[in-house]
Amino acid sequence: MGRRIILASASPRRRELLSQVGVEFAVRVSEQEERYESSTPEEIVKELALMKAEHVASELEAEERQKGGLLRDTVVIGADTVVVLDGDILGKPADEEDAVRMLTRLQGRAHWVYTGAAVLDMDGEGQRKTANYAVGTKVFVHGMTEEEIRAYVRTKEPLDKAGAYGIQGRFAAWIDRIEGDYYNVVGLPVSAVYRTLQELGACPAGGAGCSCKDEAV
Amino acid sequence: MGRRIILASASPRRRELLSQVGVEFAVRVSEQEERYESSTPEEIVKELALMKAEHVASELEAEERQKGGLLRDTVVIGADTVVVLDGDILGKPADEEDAVRMLTRLQGRAHWVYTGAAVLDMDGEGQRKTANYAVGTKVFVHGMTEEEIRAYVRTKEPLDKAGAYGIQGRFAAWIDRIEGDYYNVVGLPVSAVYRTLQELGACPAGGAGCSCKDEAV
Repeated sequence: MGRRIILASASPRRRELLSQVGVEFAVRVSEQEERYESSTPEEIVKELALMKAEHVASELEAEERQKGGLLRDTVVIGADTVVVLDGDILGKPADEEDAVRMLTRLQGRAHWVYTGAAVLDMDGEGQRKTANYAVGTKVFVHGMTEEEIRAYVRTKEPLDKAGAYGIQGRFAAWIDRIEGDYYNVVGLPVSAVYRTLQELGACPAGGAGCSCKDEAV
Repeated sequence: MGRRIILASASPRRRELLSQVGVEFAVRVSEQEERYESSTPEEIVKELALMKAEHVASELEAEERQKGGLLRDTVVIGADTVVVLDGDILGKPADEEDAVRMLTRLQGRAHWVYTGAAVLDMDGEGQRKTANYAVGTKVFVHGMTEEEIRAYVRTKEPLDKAGAYGIQGRFAAWIDRIEGDYYNVVGLPVSAVYRTLQELGACPAGGAGCSCKDEAV
């Protein structure tokens, strides 16, 4: 039997990416807060992604228990993305001036984007398997003048994005090259997540074309 | 004065990319055939991109001459993309079996995508300047079974695309990583082209944020 897939993220960009590769899923976001204890960017995004997925899974489990059942045949996917420069994590800018400061640091050099992914798989017996990893992509940003940075910030595109830019938007004009998964920079390492779903036997029959390990396509 | 920008390509993907970075343009495609004499992929795409742009520019010039004028304040952009594996150029597949053959060769290894770009700039005096270059991106495709390849081909996505895949579509599930400009694989090296427009003073004031060399933003 196929699993139902739940994306534990409110990000419209993550939704688009998962849809793009043909995965059918529902979205459910927990109101519970995430706090991390890790210290490196890779560990932090892994931890946050796992927490997001676990919060949603535990809420679903509680609901099933109330009905006297078990949470089964369900996959929950969590993700978290950060931009890292000289060891500093750049989150979403607080305001336009903060966005100008971040872009001033990012321009003319390379930085890393890490997305953590967590895939929780509850099988037909309610047994849980967990995959949790971080994917890094190196991004090379062209040199920008202060005027160019301010003109970009005025487009408002940076304000809701980690690192104050959207590679999938107007900022594409300033990205010289990347090394790694492009979609990881957008917010989800789709090929890695797709592979994980495949390994769990949870990938969609009509997707990009896949043969799951323990079910017929 | 700002230049008007003409994209000499019928590709909806190129249109989207140029729009994405805030460039305003019109589309005009020539019916004239392009034939190349170059032998390397980089030289071929450069030559084809230049020919596409020159065909459109010469048609526009002829129209202006008929009106007793000169073609001025106009930029024409041409582009051409190929997928290259072991020195072979993979164009668009002839049919589904051809797509299966191409994907069978591409899976489990790296290949190159080259896009040639040509930017012809006619200034206020009708003087022409030309920029013409090719950008290469290395693409790493995950291993695929024949079943996976056939399931992907059944989605029809490969049929109108060089190399039989769309990185911006379902095939994203199979791209492990890239080295270079992602948008170059989609069909236009937007950051390089944007930079060229900037250098020509032809970039849009409301674009991704740019300061053109010879005009106020």
